[in-house]
Amino acid sequence: MTYLDHAATTPLLPEAAAALTEALSTVGNASSLHTSGRRARRAVEEARESIAESLGARPSEVVFTSGGTEADNLAVKGVHWGRPGKGRVLVGAIEHHAVLDAAHWLGEHAGAEITYLEVDDFGRVHDDTLRAAIAEDPDAVSLVSVMWANNEVGTVNPVRELAATCAEFGIPFHTDAVQAVGALPVDFAATGASALTVSGHKVGGPYGVGALLLGRDVACVPLSHGGGQERDVRSGTIDVPGVVAMAAALRVATAEQAERARALADLRDELVRVVKAAVPGAVLNGDPGQTAMDGGPSRLPGNAHFTFPGCEGDSLLMLLDARGIECSTGSACTAGVAQPSHVLLGMGVDPKRARGSLRFSLGHTSTRADVDALAAAIGPVVERAQSAGLAGLRRAEV
Amino acid sequence: MTYLDHAATTPLLPEAAAALTEALSTVGNASSLHTSGRRARRAVEEARESIAESLGARPSEVVFTSGGTEADNLAVKGVHWGRPGKGRVLVGAIEHHAVLDAAHWLGEHAGAEITYLEVDDFGRVHDDTLRAAIAEDPDAVSLVSVMWANNEVGTVNPVRELAATCAEFGIPFHTDAVQAVGALPVDFAATGASALTVSGHKVGGPYGVGALLLGRDVACVPLSHGGGQERDVRSGTIDVPGVVAMAAALRVATAEQAERARALADLRDELVRVVKAAVPGAVLNGDPGQTAMDGGPSRLPGNAHFTFPGCEGDSLLMLLDARGIECSTGSACTAGVAQPSHVLLGMGVDPKRARGSLRFSLGHTSTRADVDALAAAIGPVVERAQSAGLAGLRRAEV
Repeated sequence: MTYLDHAATTPLLPEAAAALTEALSTVGNASSLHTSGRRARRAVEEARESIAESLGARPSEVVFTSGGTEADNLAVKGVHWGRPGKGRVLVGAIEHHAVLDAAHWLGEHAGAEITYLEVDDFGRVHDDTLRAAIAEDPDAVSLVSVMWANNEVGTVNPVRELAATCAEFGIPFHTDAVQAVGALPVDFAATGASALTVSGHKVGGPYGVGALLLGRDVACVPLSHGGGQERDVRSGTIDVPGVVAMAAALRVATAEQAERARALADLRDELVRVVKAAVPGAVLNGDPGQTAMDGGPSRLPGNAHFTFPGCEGDSLLMLLDARGIECSTGSACTAGVAQPSHVLLGMGVDPKRARGSLRFSLGHTSTRADVDALAAAIGPVVERAQSAGLAGLRRAEV
Repeated sequence: MTYLDHAATTPLLPEAAAALTEALSTVGNASSLHTSGRRARRAVEEARESIAESLGARPSEVVFTSGGTEADNLAVKGVHWGRPGKGRVLVGAIEHHAVLDAAHWLGEHAGAEITYLEVDDFGRVHDDTLRAAIAEDPDAVSLVSVMWANNEVGTVNPVRELAATCAEFGIPFHTDAVQAVGALPVDFAATGASALTVSGHKVGGPYGVGALLLGRDVACVPLSHGGGQERDVRSGTIDVPGVVAMAAALRVATAEQAERARALADLRDELVRVVKAAVPGAVLNGDPGQTAMDGGPSRLPGNAHFTFPGCEGDSLLMLLDARGIECSTGSACTAGVAQPSHVLLGMGVDPKRARGSLRFSLGHTSTRADVDALAAAIGPVVERAQSAGLAGLRRAEV
């Protein structure tokens, strides 16, 4: 099987699996006061310190959640509610639905005014766009949320610049770094963000666990009330094995980040080359360049996203799947939805072309053999999908 | 080590550990359309069917969450918001904080009027109390939430009767069954509840996963927005290994429920006997009887909760812990909090006596040797805690 869908979920790293298995054999609620409870608490606090170190945060800034979606919701709604009297929420137009729909809900049900920050053709939010949006009424802005890197097309945002602009106006800046962690150097303190979302299973850790890095001075109203765990910001029994395993995954993913990013980018460039060679009409979406203004990459190293004109993305996906190659038409979270991707539409791609798109995402188990398998399959698959598309057109004409 | 804190968390059942380990080795986001994704989706749907069967629900009524706290929050806030225009929320006075604090938050921040339903000296909500509270303004009630069995003192509520009363007035009835599942026969359909909370790690499954059983016709506003998983009620990537392992745990826990409950009740009765023999002044809190009106037990089979007059619960806990016996002063979720338990206060116990209380909770690994260990330790430990208490008093008098 050729797995080219690491952006949806990536296999558990061996180090995370080992940490998880070991922790599973222990018992003890981290809130309990007896020896087992204190041992569990120690494991949790060590995980917290390790995660903080991996991501340039302080341990007290790590708030454990059930995953990226919960962390995004907590950041958007919690920070907004934490600034009563401020009604404007600014979010990137092509954010993950966890940010977008949380903001939309605030607009529909909590009286917030939502501004969707436009992106350029590559999917990037420019600082000018942010400044112009803030300028409409700076004092009323409760929160700005712009993702570190886009989950579909891989475009990296100038988060440091955006965070600095927010800081200038005293506005909290949240960034969904689910795709960035492990792929790019992510340093919470250096970024200047107020809040940052991390997911466990996207970095080689387990499902069901994530974190919101949250500055100590950032007010955040909890979405989950109860036992008062996690600075009272997020109640619920802490998933001890989960956080321990996520910490292990983050240690590996961040320690090996530079080396792995280089290798993945090389492999990805090769993937782009072979796809274009096999299908000359294929269009690479997102940022084609390699280097952003700050010297870092302008595109996620493991991401390649194409439009294949004249094809339906779902047909391509199924035809590739039949040949043992697994990829995605966009975000897994909205897979199966018949609408074209809001990310591509936000970038100005027309709906018909948007539907003919595929995302290939590489990760820690990817090899040259995966690229070779795709190289062999993509030509015939696109040809078949195009004739199916033409046949469909002819049927429609009859 | 003598672990008498199964109500806080209980070791993973071997069947759940096996299911978890097997699932951990697979990859695939259950929302992905390719073969791995569809395999993950199949595992999730099989888990859903299995859980539904274990708990007398329909598969479509199982909404996966990150645990009991999230499920309680979703039920209380989500169902309340799902009935716009209705402002009254009725909750038991000694609910778990996940229900109590969620309701309190609705009162403070969302304009709801919260009624706390009084309990009797055993900690039970009577149907008369519920009827009287509803009668004040039946049309305005958005939701009633009363736990199936109390997590501290083990008292079982007449949930069928309470649910029937709510049904009479067309009011959704939620019950937190976190402590009841596996300990009592829990059948969602037979109960007549609209929503029911289940936790994974309390039944021998993993941390970080739980479920809200939610009737198909019960409107529920999501707390977590995003990918639209779980009937759009709870977004977030599904924890495939987590739900598979929770399903395995629930199969075992519900299949063996009757047999295990009998054995645990016998062991618990023996525990009560030896504690009272060693400490004649010890008072058993909660329902002393064995049989509720409906023929089921009136107290959780694994629960024994005592007040030891003249002692501080924390001192007792630490002295027992030093002898290798692990128990709790109440709910793990509020352990470390210096206030007396809201459960005991709600039952009319005076604050001073409430502070001198301990919960012993038995579970699937408990044996006669655990009870023997407690029998040998409790007398000397209480004596020492009493003299420490007296010494404290004398110091205070000086």
